[in-house]
Amino acid sequence: MTSCVLGEMIKRNLITLFVIIGGTLWLAETVSAAGGEHGGLEPFVLLGVAVILVAAKIVGEVFERLGQPSVLGELVAGIILGNLVLFGFSGAEALKTNVVIAALAELGVIILLFEVGLESNLKEMKAVGISAMLVAIVGVIFPFFLGWGVARFFIPDEATLGHIFIGATLCATSIGITARVLKDMGKLGTNEARIILGAAVIDDVLGMLILAVVSGAIKAAASGTTLAVVDVVIIAAKAIGFLIAGILLGQFIVPYLFRGANRFTGRGVLLAVSLSLCFFMSWAASKVGLAPIIGAFAAGLILDEVHFEHLDDHTKHDLEHLLSPVSSILAPVFFVVVGLKVDLSVFARPELLGFATALTLAAIVGKQVCSVAALEKGLNRLSIGLGMIPRGEVGLIFAGIGATLMLPDAQGVTQPVINSATFGVVVIMVIVTTLITPPALKWSMAGSKR
Amino acid sequence: MTSCVLGEMIKRNLITLFVIIGGTLWLAETVSAAGGEHGGLEPFVLLGVAVILVAAKIVGEVFERLGQPSVLGELVAGIILGNLVLFGFSGAEALKTNVVIAALAELGVIILLFEVGLESNLKEMKAVGISAMLVAIVGVIFPFFLGWGVARFFIPDEATLGHIFIGATLCATSIGITARVLKDMGKLGTNEARIILGAAVIDDVLGMLILAVVSGAIKAAASGTTLAVVDVVIIAAKAIGFLIAGILLGQFIVPYLFRGANRFTGRGVLLAVSLSLCFFMSWAASKVGLAPIIGAFAAGLILDEVHFEHLDDHTKHDLEHLLSPVSSILAPVFFVVVGLKVDLSVFARPELLGFATALTLAAIVGKQVCSVAALEKGLNRLSIGLGMIPRGEVGLIFAGIGATLMLPDAQGVTQPVINSATFGVVVIMVIVTTLITPPALKWSMAGSKR
Repeated sequence: MTSCVLGEMIKRNLITLFVIIGGTLWLAETVSAAGGEHGGLEPFVLLGVAVILVAAKIVGEVFERLGQPSVLGELVAGIILGNLVLFGFSGAEALKTNVVIAALAELGVIILLFEVGLESNLKEMKAVGISAMLVAIVGVIFPFFLGWGVARFFIPDEATLGHIFIGATLCATSIGITARVLKDMGKLGTNEARIILGAAVIDDVLGMLILAVVSGAIKAAASGTTLAVVDVVIIAAKAIGFLIAGILLGQFIVPYLFRGANRFTGRGVLLAVSLSLCFFMSWAASKVGLAPIIGAFAAGLILDEVHFEHLDDHTKHDLEHLLSPVSSILAPVFFVVVGLKVDLSVFARPELLGFATALTLAAIVGKQVCSVAALEKGLNRLSIGLGMIPRGEVGLIFAGIGATLMLPDAQGVTQPVINSATFGVVVIMVIVTTLITPPALKWSMAGSKR
Repeated sequence: MTSCVLGEMIKRNLITLFVIIGGTLWLAETVSAAGGEHGGLEPFVLLGVAVILVAAKIVGEVFERLGQPSVLGELVAGIILGNLVLFGFSGAEALKTNVVIAALAELGVIILLFEVGLESNLKEMKAVGISAMLVAIVGVIFPFFLGWGVARFFIPDEATLGHIFIGATLCATSIGITARVLKDMGKLGTNEARIILGAAVIDDVLGMLILAVVSGAIKAAASGTTLAVVDVVIIAAKAIGFLIAGILLGQFIVPYLFRGANRFTGRGVLLAVSLSLCFFMSWAASKVGLAPIIGAFAAGLILDEVHFEHLDDHTKHDLEHLLSPVSSILAPVFFVVVGLKVDLSVFARPELLGFATALTLAAIVGKQVCSVAALEKGLNRLSIGLGMIPRGEVGLIFAGIGATLMLPDAQGVTQPVINSATFGVVVIMVIVTTLITPPALKWSMAGSKR
């Protein structure tokens, strides 16, 4: 019988013994050489994602209890993680530079915008199309010239094309932050939300055109020539031509695609086919130089019109229902990663603060003007203006491209169009516009009645 | 009024115009220089994931209609994609080597095993613990010695430690394939499934120990010494000591973790905290040299015992419900990526086919013996044996480690323990064991009554 008792003890503890593996960071370090790596994923990524998710949910919860949007909490969680000097395992630096975590973050914002597209109604968006177009145009022109002027005032020694480039970094609204706040507040169905989202899509297109033209002009100037008007027209025509061709083909293909998918019976076909379309259009958008999220948003808008009644057992949970868990995990990764990139030490460079303050004001004020351009009556114009403020990753990407372009300055010395000081200024502008939008928008959408 | 008609036309087409972006692969190539890259994600990944998902669902559907498990279809979809010589965009090679796609695949199998752990019942698994342990031990010993013998027969000139290493590649069952088939068939609740899953976890641990010991012996031999028994004991004691320490800490921490999470109100807290635990334990498992999926399976088993009644609005959809969409997207990515790695040209090397056939038979026969060791009566022992067959990525990883270890052969020439020919043999063994398991297991679980 003792063997039976022993057997029982072993039984009770055996699986448990092999079952709970984790829990001891320090012990792990001491035995990490015991075996080989399994598979292609760095184990650090698993730990990093776990830390990001826990931090996002904890700080997000704190902000929600303070009456702030949880997305702001996620940004702050990222800032805290990114600026912790004594960050144990492998350091925050690895979180910032890891390519897989960056990819998960980008997939997160792509899926978020796909979700926002699904919740937006194409017909209702078309109804505010003219307003969105006007808001976008005004919202590109004003910040562009304001930024140009600010740059001319603060760095007069740089070449004029450098000033123009800084103006270009202020053009495109970062749709992710605004979309998330509107979504969390359940305001995606309002006219204001439709105008903001439509305008943000259009101003990304306009921003891309400006970037292409200014970059072309700088490359021409660097080789001692100037950009001909015909080149500008060609750049613009190529991108717009691609968009139109994409539309025509997309309108034919998507209904067939889903008519085919309707015949499938396997698990998860609806989600897989929808996400494939989302990823495909994101890829196509990036191929014409647009942000992938614009393609994802567009894919969501198209699918909103397609019906899936006879798809499979999972149909009773519709697509938005299936997407929700995916996006509730990946979208916070994006916002934490955006926060990670915020190096608080740029705020400690007093020589840049004047320029940064002026550029940030230009970014904010420039977009407030655009709300006047909306045609509909009874709009909450303040919310439209506030919703267009965040520049997020698009501004950073523009600045990053500027850092790779060389140009002779007023003294004829060849320099990058965006040097490290100017880059810091753009980063501050991006941080401030990103951080003020969630609380400002929440306040204006909930409180003001104008 | 013409301006109004024009306005109407613009209105109708404006948003549509900026909305459908994709659809034209060739056009995209011609304008890809127009703008800059947005963000850190290579756009190719988006296209690659879209292609993988569509291929997985199409071929999976075909196989299901033929009465085969869809996972086999996903493997075949990967083999087709990976061996298409005329594969348009950027080639299949990029799909195989892209680090982000590899990471998504690994996250897919991690989440799948987490899901399987959640569906498994810890108490019921403990009830078959002794059987699982015995099945695992027999299922490691027989293939190990059979593989050793086969290697000794076919490559007698290699060093004995090389033969032993090949035996080691046959030890560990790849739990992913079997778990997926059992899950798709709704058989996770059977005693056979519990024994297979328990034994697969344990034989990964045993396989890891054998790998560590054999690798240690090879390193010692390469430096002209032999491995002392005390070193073997230290290697084993370290890993097992870590497991026990992990258990004790895990049992204390997890209930507190979820008691804390219960107080949160934000969106997706349940899923985020659960996945964080899953990723954390996967990371911890990899730190002691186990496959991350073992940690994920363990995390699922633990959480099965924790209750979340008061968590948030989403509680009515329990955790399995929230995980289902995530895993229905990522798990197929894993199986397609496994298929991608299958280079069909290894089958065209006749000089290896004898060795490969013998090693594959050793792998299959060796695991059939283990089913006799299960104690319970009335078991479908054939299914247990068949379920233990697939070696999958664990065998490939062992072979990959062998390729980095150097050893003098019988003539005293220093060579890698696993050279490219032997690696090809191991790859064939992995392919065949992976491909035959789904249909064999489906047939034996559904059909046989023995």
